[in-house]
Amino acid sequence: MRLPLAASVAVLAFAAASGAKAEEGMWTFDNFPIARANQTLGTNIDQAWLDRVRLSSVKFGGCSAGLVSGEGLVLTNNHCVATCVANLSTQAVNYAETGFAPRTREEELQCPGGSAEILTEITDVTARMHAAGAGLEGQAFTRARDAEAGAIEQEACGGDAATRCQVVSLYRGGQFKLYKFRRYTDVRLAWAPEDRAATFGGDLDNFSFPRFAIDAAFVRLYENGQPVATPTHFTWNAERPVEGTPVFVSGNPGSTQRLLTLDQLATIRDVVLPLDQLIASELRGRLIRFSEESEENAFIAMDPIVGLENTYKRGRGRMAALVDPGFMAMKAEAEADFRQRAGALAGVGDPWTELSAVQPIARELYPAMALLEGGTGMGTTSPGGGSQLFSWARTLVRAAQEREKPSAERLPEYADSRLAAVQNALFAARPVYPSLEQVRLEWWLSKTREWLTVDDPRVRALLGDESPEQLSARLAAGSTLGDPAVRRALWEGGLAAVEASDDPMIRYLLSIQEPTRAIRSEWEEKVESPTARASEQLAAARFQAYGDSVYPDATGTLRLTYGKIEGSDVPGQRWGPFTTFGGLWDRATGAPPFDVAPKLLAAKDRIDPDTVMNMAVSSDTIGGSSGSPVVTEAGEIVGANFDSTVLTQRNAYGYDRAVNRSVIVTTGAITTALRDVYGMERLVEELGAR
Amino acid sequence: MRLPLAASVAVLAFAAASGAKAEEGMWTFDNFPIARANQTLGTNIDQAWLDRVRLSSVKFGGCSAGLVSGEGLVLTNNHCVATCVANLSTQAVNYAETGFAPRTREEELQCPGGSAEILTEITDVTARMHAAGAGLEGQAFTRARDAEAGAIEQEACGGDAATRCQVVSLYRGGQFKLYKFRRYTDVRLAWAPEDRAATFGGDLDNFSFPRFAIDAAFVRLYENGQPVATPTHFTWNAERPVEGTPVFVSGNPGSTQRLLTLDQLATIRDVVLPLDQLIASELRGRLIRFSEESEENAFIAMDPIVGLENTYKRGRGRMAALVDPGFMAMKAEAEADFRQRAGALAGVGDPWTELSAVQPIARELYPAMALLEGGTGMGTTSPGGGSQLFSWARTLVRAAQEREKPSAERLPEYADSRLAAVQNALFAARPVYPSLEQVRLEWWLSKTREWLTVDDPRVRALLGDESPEQLSARLAAGSTLGDPAVRRALWEGGLAAVEASDDPMIRYLLSIQEPTRAIRSEWEEKVESPTARASEQLAAARFQAYGDSVYPDATGTLRLTYGKIEGSDVPGQRWGPFTTFGGLWDRATGAPPFDVAPKLLAAKDRIDPDTVMNMAVSSDTIGGSSGSPVVTEAGEIVGANFDSTVLTQRNAYGYDRAVNRSVIVTTGAITTALRDVYGMERLVEELGAR
Repeated sequence: MRLPLAASVAVLAFAAASGAKAEEGMWTFDNFPIARANQTLGTNIDQAWLDRVRLSSVKFGGCSAGLVSGEGLVLTNNHCVATCVANLSTQAVNYAETGFAPRTREEELQCPGGSAEILTEITDVTARMHAAGAGLEGQAFTRARDAEAGAIEQEACGGDAATRCQVVSLYRGGQFKLYKFRRYTDVRLAWAPEDRAATFGGDLDNFSFPRFAIDAAFVRLYENGQPVATPTHFTWNAERPVEGTPVFVSGNPGSTQRLLTLDQLATIRDVVLPLDQLIASELRGRLIRFSEESEENAFIAMDPIVGLENTYKRGRGRMAALVDPGFMAMKAEAEADFRQRAGALAGVGDPWTELSAVQPIARELYPAMALLEGGTGMGTTSPGGGSQLFSWARTLVRAAQEREKPSAERLPEYADSRLAAVQNALFAARPVYPSLEQVRLEWWLSKTREWLTVDDPRVRALLGDESPEQLSARLAAGSTLGDPAVRRALWEGGLAAVEASDDPMIRYLLSIQEPTRAIRSEWEEKVESPTARASEQLAAARFQAYGDSVYPDATGTLRLTYGKIEGSDVPGQRWGPFTTFGGLWDRATGAPPFDVAPKLLAAKDRIDPDTVMNMAVSSDTIGGSSGSPVVTEAGEIVGANFDSTVLTQRNAYGYDRAVNRSVIVTTGAITTALRDVYGMERLVEELGAR
Repeated sequence: MRLPLAASVAVLAFAAASGAKAEEGMWTFDNFPIARANQTLGTNIDQAWLDRVRLSSVKFGGCSAGLVSGEGLVLTNNHCVATCVANLSTQAVNYAETGFAPRTREEELQCPGGSAEILTEITDVTARMHAAGAGLEGQAFTRARDAEAGAIEQEACGGDAATRCQVVSLYRGGQFKLYKFRRYTDVRLAWAPEDRAATFGGDLDNFSFPRFAIDAAFVRLYENGQPVATPTHFTWNAERPVEGTPVFVSGNPGSTQRLLTLDQLATIRDVVLPLDQLIASELRGRLIRFSEESEENAFIAMDPIVGLENTYKRGRGRMAALVDPGFMAMKAEAEADFRQRAGALAGVGDPWTELSAVQPIARELYPAMALLEGGTGMGTTSPGGGSQLFSWARTLVRAAQEREKPSAERLPEYADSRLAAVQNALFAARPVYPSLEQVRLEWWLSKTREWLTVDDPRVRALLGDESPEQLSARLAAGSTLGDPAVRRALWEGGLAAVEASDDPMIRYLLSIQEPTRAIRSEWEEKVESPTARASEQLAAARFQAYGDSVYPDATGTLRLTYGKIEGSDVPGQRWGPFTTFGGLWDRATGAPPFDVAPKLLAAKDRIDPDTVMNMAVSSDTIGGSSGSPVVTEAGEIVGANFDSTVLTQRNAYGYDRAVNRSVIVTTGAITTALRDVYGMERLVEELGAR
């Protein structure tokens, strides 16, 4: 099961037409190509199978996960619980170092702010949403759409804390669907391995294969203090996987940009990724040095550095795709094919030219929008530099201001239908480290000053008479928002309480509302709205030109993708589909990040070295797919997706069958870890592991 | 004297043809367009004027400078003596903080490793150089050329320590000239202001105008312990400058890439600048945090951070040009014009296609070549991460190995004709800070591992069983090369001494010779040689197509450029040509980097606020032009070039009259500083300041 050799890595599979090819596509559950998948894979799944898989699939924060027992047990990745583990740890009791292996169910610990959701219902609301924006332009268009989405969500889920409703834009506005979720806000950590067992090879092995990482963890859903009964769940299959087996991956891929035009991609290549990556690289340098200063700092910075390095390396993979002449030639060919087909259709207009006209404005506004407001939908940069205090203060100030207005007139993230989730995140108890907060704020303030230039009036509003060093130190040291009771009191006290607060971070956020809201309005008016309108036309044309063989870009909602257990045979990436524990012992040098976790190493004699640890599959995944259950035709779970190769990062922009490989931790490796390393026979039994 | 408004910044002046436009060009002194310059500016210079200007112009390290008295006094920028100042300072006696204002000539202090050169003779050696490479390919071609250059230099200057000869490649191999310099290796610091007076606004104001910086300093040439008599020098004119005055700027612009093809520029845009900038940004983060850890670290890191930020900001300006659709469209138009003209000529061949074929190889090899060997001629990355100990050890190891061979067979930088300069740099006493060395080495090792990937055999050779953290700590702490006597003993002991050394840095450099020399050979064979051959064809075609209206790319050798004292009137860059001390007082906030230097501030009442500090001129300059004398038709010096605007950074790739502005510190401001701030009446008198 190897692919033929290719002179150019990308030449093999990426075809000119915009219709999906075999194994391509992150499909929604209400439009999955059952027949094509069965034909391609030789399987026999049906709608009932799809429904069971959907109801066994879990969205967990920004990750994916799967139900694996009748008592609410959920498998996800260790890196998906890393922030939970960090929040539950102290330097003295550091679960990242020791692993978390509760002897009894009663010792499972709640993840602060954690929530999990299961998608129960999908309804088409395209007509209502299109009607809401009809005849409107600019910010009026954006706001009318936002208001309508909020109203639809409120009508469907309002007042029911156990559900969440979300209007999802698909095909960049071509369709709108109402997704209804069963929501759980008491999610407890049930097991996590030693961090090094999950991250063996660290940043160096990240986004690569062969791989030797037990990047798995369990959480459990609770309600009213009891585990939730979950009769619909995946069956645990820990048998040795077989090359070529068809598999399905069910998860929540975060974001792709495959439907963007070439001009839109050029904006990402020339402006968005360079800014995001350059400033992230500087933060990385600051945090690395910070972590070297003391044991305490190393503990504090560990989780932030891992997250940052992951995002940065992904960005490098994406940039590599956008400057790859071969890959971009294929994107150009696909666009030419689409434009030619669209030209033969009636009433399509020229959305490509409309989108081109937006790009100079997007290029000009991106730095200010990203650094001051975030939410560009294009890049990763956001205000506050990841400061937790800043983020809480921003939520408190904005929510207080917005809640004074009727729901339909608010910034959409504070519509009535969304306040429950906002509160849940705000009230969760998390540790705050002022030293880390200071590093993040200083970095953000100094990069904002640098990119917008020191004489920009918005920069003056941001800094006043202080330097980034002074201001960040004052805010990080003086704020009391680290206390959940303080946050709760400010939330409940509303605008009066917020405006009366003398917390320096609250006062600071109050002082910068004008410039940050102004850039958002400008962006919505000049970039977001014209982009949305033209993209909608493009989506309509695409349906006409390619029929149902198109799938929407990823948007963080549940998708199903399919492929096979398979290695790789392109230049520079030649390997079989499996790694084993024996391979781990061979790769280990003892020096970080190639040191085997102590408990895992101690269990070496108990572990069969031929047991498969990780495997590669050809399914179409992207960030957000982390933790996705990997499922067979029989509905059995055989692993959890945790990564993909660096070449696969191009699939943000287009599918390339030849290089596209997801990286999976097997149920066999997890069972071994539970039984032979961490003494979790209790869970092995619950899983009914064979 | 304002330019008309332009919708697009770049539209105004950059024309399609590759021939130079009025005021364009960094011209060699033996091919300066006297008639065109006189016609454009309304001046009346002649060959005798050119000769006087050339003999009054000084190359000082990587900077430019000008003789301003008969007693060897030389004006340059403060940032050109910053490393000298840092080397002469301790945390207790910190001349960057206090300025350096010797009461008597005897108190002037020698700059460690400093040297200055005056260009005395230019001879054409094109025929010899072309003959040396005739019929050869690959590395044989490169090495034969290098050997011939070394032989020519040795014949002309061998054995005379007071001269240096250099074969200069012009027009990317279209011409070769032998440049003969009078060389001075005892250069003493004669005056430097407080650093903040020279760097007011710091990195934030760098590459911008209006500007308020006294970025000036004096050094003096010595020989046999006495100041050198320099009867030929510029006349000091400290009068108030007048807008529109024609000026000439004589200096050593470092490097431009204007003659590169579009495909070559794409390699810089897609591969070279991203790598250089991303890793520089991380080093910046590490050094910023390092400098915040203590007063001592702040002192140690100051000069490195300033240099790094300057290079990084320049890179941002260059990247902005390469992703500017308007600018690149004009480059494309120019290339199309050239190809069309060349197509009508006989025997030109297709060097464009040959250069295109090299690009995939250059893209693939650049990271390894830059990180392991340096000297790519394309980017700024080099091995060792700027570690001084690494650099010394590399010189000692390589020179010892190379000196075993006949001069013509050595790596060209160790040819007999170049050893004097190598020794001069090696033996100079400079402080070494192990903590800074460790930061630099750790960063370089970890970035090399990241970009080449951990499984690359060269990375394994680089690291052995150690992590970057361990190895860098061991090398920085254990090496004794900081002692000049140790270096001298190893140099004089030759290969036997080097191989017997137990200095860990020497042993380390010995251990990595194989992989670093191998990537260099591969690069020479597959990139450098085919590029040189095709570029030579391109140069010949250009002479045929455009006659003498072409000038060579900058190569760090002496050039003359011309323009006028003039402000700017393009969108986002609208300002008059002058700033004053009054403007400085207005811009000062008291917070770094907008704090006025204490001595300068204390002199406020003695300074006429209308005195011009800085001015903008339209001459064509680039990095390396720093310190260039700005000279009138009368041969009077009216300022020293110290910067250009960030938009001007595009002139690495093409000339754009509308945005091209150099930033000058005036002789008036320097005279004021000497007389009213730093008590240097002694120098004012020597300058004969009016």
